[in-house]
Amino acid sequence: MSKSTEPGHNLAFFDAERSADVVNARMGPDISPRFREIMTIIVSHLHAAVKEAALTTEEWMAGIEFLTKTGQMCSDWRQEFILLSDVLGVSMLVDALNHHRPEGSTENTVLGPFYVAGAPHYELGANICLDGKGEPLVVRGRVTDTDGNPVPGAVVDVWATNDDGFYDVQQKGIQPDHNLRGVFIADSNGEYWFRTVKPRFYPIPDDGTVGKLLASLGRHPNRAAHLHFIVKAPGYDTVVTHIFTPDCQYLGEDAVFGVKDSLIADFRQVDEPVEAGELGFSTPFWKVDWNFVLARSEDVRMNEPGGFMPGKPSSNGGE
Amino acid sequence: MSKSTEPGHNLAFFDAERSADVVNARMGPDISPRFREIMTIIVSHLHAAVKEAALTTEEWMAGIEFLTKTGQMCSDWRQEFILLSDVLGVSMLVDALNHHRPEGSTENTVLGPFYVAGAPHYELGANICLDGKGEPLVVRGRVTDTDGNPVPGAVVDVWATNDDGFYDVQQKGIQPDHNLRGVFIADSNGEYWFRTVKPRFYPIPDDGTVGKLLASLGRHPNRAAHLHFIVKAPGYDTVVTHIFTPDCQYLGEDAVFGVKDSLIADFRQVDEPVEAGELGFSTPFWKVDWNFVLARSEDVRMNEPGGFMPGKPSSNGGE
Repeated sequence: MSKSTEPGHNLAFFDAERSADVVNARMGPDISPRFREIMTIIVSHLHAAVKEAALTTEEWMAGIEFLTKTGQMCSDWRQEFILLSDVLGVSMLVDALNHHRPEGSTENTVLGPFYVAGAPHYELGANICLDGKGEPLVVRGRVTDTDGNPVPGAVVDVWATNDDGFYDVQQKGIQPDHNLRGVFIADSNGEYWFRTVKPRFYPIPDDGTVGKLLASLGRHPNRAAHLHFIVKAPGYDTVVTHIFTPDCQYLGEDAVFGVKDSLIADFRQVDEPVEAGELGFSTPFWKVDWNFVLARSEDVRMNEPGGFMPGKPSSNGGE
Repeated sequence: MSKSTEPGHNLAFFDAERSADVVNARMGPDISPRFREIMTIIVSHLHAAVKEAALTTEEWMAGIEFLTKTGQMCSDWRQEFILLSDVLGVSMLVDALNHHRPEGSTENTVLGPFYVAGAPHYELGANICLDGKGEPLVVRGRVTDTDGNPVPGAVVDVWATNDDGFYDVQQKGIQPDHNLRGVFIADSNGEYWFRTVKPRFYPIPDDGTVGKLLASLGRHPNRAAHLHFIVKAPGYDTVVTHIFTPDCQYLGEDAVFGVKDSLIADFRQVDEPVEAGELGFSTPFWKVDWNFVLARSEDVRMNEPGGFMPGKPSSNGGE
């Protein structure tokens, strides 16, 4: 057999042991330094994972097919790769890496795929539950800064599933438009309140590749019961957050790892006929008091590439 | 703010530092042990990569969009994720992990996306170049076992691009059907020969996401000039291999890392009018002698999950 006569080609040819180095050495001299950094890391971990797992050809092909079908599930109305990122904890990790909020401010969590901009603006106290299903709930609280000063005019944008576990946009024509969605403006004391129904758990869309993956992993697709919020005001870092009910059976196993200690609220069931009458509720009904603490924009350290400190987790630091 | 009253939830909630552990702890008790192993490794490396790179939200989204579009490029005729695996060296790595051939046998390399089963069977010596383009080449050699014994009846399936750098299936209606494809059967001495044209470099399909990635990496899409072969015989491990020309400008930078030292052949340009006349060639023409050494099936150790030995690379061991 003929051979190459040049022994000094180093990283030109594939080499199983140094495979990631061979691939990374191929990058050109003039590419973005940040892209070089990211791709070097991705290729290194990709090759390390394939070697550690000693993937068989059939397993590799199963992975190719999974990724292909995941891409093909995506449409203008569905983002299966974000869902994959969510159930593998990557979305929460990226979120944590990118929002280093000062202590005492409300923690953020996943946005999820069902936020719709342009929900109706309501007067404080309005009931966003338009289909009459579920157990009545009143939510009250204040929006303050990290020193406890009110933030008048703060925008409190809330959305949730109905009591059947679906968002309005998942049941067009079945639920009233904008069911369980509303935008409220905090008053001059930073106070807000609205009426809704107690949230319940619901499954993330599980009829695609991600649903199959979850089943193969022995995991259910359910999210712990929560209300979604985006809270914002000029000069403050917008926070995307939830409040969770403390009694949901899925609290400790949220499918997208969105639960944080500091986001679990005290939902109280009460039997107060006078207040119920004022609220238009029957008894018993639910109450939750919840304050949002906004961080000033300049106090939030955004991600610095390469600046993640493993010793300084950015989540669960907002006590 | 209300808090969870249970301090002992351990890995139930997301934690940036232990993020991969939190995700992996969620797997059910009854899943396939092998799938558990693979996913644990993938999730661990995925989270480690995101942390090391300290991905910004925008970079994460760029990754989501890249994967989505890569899936959406795939069709019955195009597999962009395999192409991605190829250009990131993963296909060659999986191949190396899965074919531990005994020393002395012909090394394998990537199959590539353009193999077509069912090419015409020809008598030995036939010319597979049907469009008359390129520099004439005659390929001669033997198929033997690792002890040097001939393997009569071995099947030598060859395919290549035409001199414009395209496979017939990429230019349906432009090239003759089955141009540069043929199946030959080694004679009673294990000998085979056929006529074709000297291969030239060509680009892998670069009009999709992988082409854009290569450009961003400062890499060209070209494969070093080669002929593709599948060689097989009953009782022997089928080998998917190439022979490379030694003079191609892309030999040291094959886009899919398919080049191995042992697969570079000695292509000789000769000016032999008598032989040229016998072959139906004009002078000068090219000659290459190439023997295929098949390993007995029982001598090829296939991949054992978890059995990759970093100290024992399986490639470049076939001297």
